[in-house]
Amino acid sequence: MDVLPTNSAQNPLFQKIEKIRRRQPKVRDTHITLAHGSGGKAMRDLIDDIFVQSFDNPILSQLEDQASFNLANLMQQGDRLAFTTDSYVVDPLFFPGSDIGELAINGTINDLAVSGAKPLYLTCSVILEEGLPIETLRCVVTSMKAAANQAGIQIVTGDTKVVHRGAADKLFINTAGIGIIPPGIEISAHKIQPGDAIIINGELGNHGAAILIARGELALDTNIESDCQPLHGLVETILNVCPEVHAMRDATRGGLATVLNEFALSSDVGIRLYEQSIPVREEVKGVCELLGLDPLYLANEGKLVVVVPKQKAEAVLAAMKSHPSGKDAAIIGEAIPSPSGVVLLKTIFNAERIVDMLVGDQLPRIC
Amino acid sequence: MDVLPTNSAQNPLFQKIEKIRRRQPKVRDTHITLAHGSGGKAMRDLIDDIFVQSFDNPILSQLEDQASFNLANLMQQGDRLAFTTDSYVVDPLFFPGSDIGELAINGTINDLAVSGAKPLYLTCSVILEEGLPIETLRCVVTSMKAAANQAGIQIVTGDTKVVHRGAADKLFINTAGIGIIPPGIEISAHKIQPGDAIIINGELGNHGAAILIARGELALDTNIESDCQPLHGLVETILNVCPEVHAMRDATRGGLATVLNEFALSSDVGIRLYEQSIPVREEVKGVCELLGLDPLYLANEGKLVVVVPKQKAEAVLAAMKSHPSGKDAAIIGEAIPSPSGVVLLKTIFNAERIVDMLVGDQLPRIC
Repeated sequence: MDVLPTNSAQNPLFQKIEKIRRRQPKVRDTHITLAHGSGGKAMRDLIDDIFVQSFDNPILSQLEDQASFNLANLMQQGDRLAFTTDSYVVDPLFFPGSDIGELAINGTINDLAVSGAKPLYLTCSVILEEGLPIETLRCVVTSMKAAANQAGIQIVTGDTKVVHRGAADKLFINTAGIGIIPPGIEISAHKIQPGDAIIINGELGNHGAAILIARGELALDTNIESDCQPLHGLVETILNVCPEVHAMRDATRGGLATVLNEFALSSDVGIRLYEQSIPVREEVKGVCELLGLDPLYLANEGKLVVVVPKQKAEAVLAAMKSHPSGKDAAIIGEAIPSPSGVVLLKTIFNAERIVDMLVGDQLPRIC
Repeated sequence: MDVLPTNSAQNPLFQKIEKIRRRQPKVRDTHITLAHGSGGKAMRDLIDDIFVQSFDNPILSQLEDQASFNLANLMQQGDRLAFTTDSYVVDPLFFPGSDIGELAINGTINDLAVSGAKPLYLTCSVILEEGLPIETLRCVVTSMKAAANQAGIQIVTGDTKVVHRGAADKLFINTAGIGIIPPGIEISAHKIQPGDAIIINGELGNHGAAILIARGELALDTNIESDCQPLHGLVETILNVCPEVHAMRDATRGGLATVLNEFALSSDVGIRLYEQSIPVREEVKGVCELLGLDPLYLANEGKLVVVVPKQKAEAVLAAMKSHPSGKDAAIIGEAIPSPSGVVLLKTIFNAERIVDMLVGDQLPRIC
């Protein structure tokens, strides 16, 4: 038969075709199987039912292998494009105050925001372990969607891989993001000058402590919650009063100590911190004392380290305090000409010690 | 002490500072440890020694949390930005003809290229299993660098996570990419018209068969190699003779059958394939017969499905054959008005059968 008689209900091929047409993209399985990563029908249904319907936007719905944007429209928002990526492997997936889905959105938003960029579009690539409950995936994706909505960004393209049982731990997420940097903003870890003020937007270590407690290995009962939050609103507030911000970074893995060591090395300056000015919750201090940890190295997921010229410090601090994400902001230190590449802490007993880069591992899989 | 006497060799603090300054970013461990993902010194050394030195470009070397680009420069190359991502979990990491590193570069290049974009910048985010030999990571990164060089793209930002032993299978890579689409190019799975010709650039199924054999579970000895290759050069050649390409996609997971089913659904057309025109190596046919697989569903990593207006088919075919990545190109089918949403195969016996979306899983972890 050369021409297929598509209008004949008696034709078995036609019946098959009608069956294909009536398919609804609906995941009926209760758990992820290898078929969900095969590229075939099960994968398409998973993507349609869970990702496309949740993230719901016209770019993603095209289901092309890439999203595309008009460059002229992007240029109306600024003159430079920022581009970043992060993988999220936090264990457990859900923890007090947040979960891996919200983290995967806010973490990448923050890596864009610290360049001064307005975050616009994110990708979502997941690696799923065979056997993961579909309901778990739905919860994570719902959380991603809520975080994306809150931050005003869109998830425009993605990828789904499934590995066999035991080849991954439940669920890993990668998000990449692009954003636009407004004209005149040049923030870099290389631009810090001696005399610059170091400002933080709030309490350190809540995320790391929350994860540690959520693992349940310690019989601790606290109300510490992750500080996971998007920081681009706060960054915009800061840039409004101080477009000449020298350096800015979110203190995630490795904590404040790591960011400041990176700053000191990149800008060839020293940094002196004042312990008494650094905001840390009493509960977090307690957890740290119990476990021999240092809050300066604990992970955060909503803490911004801002370095500004000294004469702008008070104006920036006031602006930060006016924003919900910066109400506990504090000036915690200053850049000094020497010893270059080194971070020093002036303790509450007025002694001085080196705050080195983290050697070894304080706490694995916190982001 | 308020001012630190940095110039005194007798001062123990100064001695510590000098030690910190003399550090070389060199990985001395033989295997990945959790410390390599901690955010601290071990991670920084790993990133400096392996990623930054290998990928060696001024944007990555800044070690900022994001790369940034001048939009005006991007606009000189086209009018739309393409943005994509893929995670790579292939098992084994090294297989005949390629490896996970080359795959992670070429796969994302190809997802950009099929939009007509010139690929420009990629990210590199790795999830490493504790215990992975550092030498394995070096080999993979060297391979990524070689593939990036070959394709003329730069790896500009990245991320490194380490999970505990057993929480991942050796090494997963995510790459996201951006590229620029030249003016006048509008390629979409939604634009296929009845009468359009379907063209493929060469033999189907080599990658899937190579992975299957590399797993070593079959006592097969063949010379089948993965077809992993970047396709943006071939795409450029095609667009030079036919800027009005309707649809284009690389046939990876799920193979040719999956791409054509996606095309048929998106464009609301039928597709008829001619089995005798579809290039498949005899060895691949042999492996498929042995295992009950269908080469139409086998994965490829360098195969381009191109849909063009019928009157342009011969010109496009000739152009493809003139390019090293298209020398075995063939016209393998056509779009038909009905049955819409369905792919039909005219077999070598002149019968017709439906080529449905893959139901179930043919071969896991092939990309």
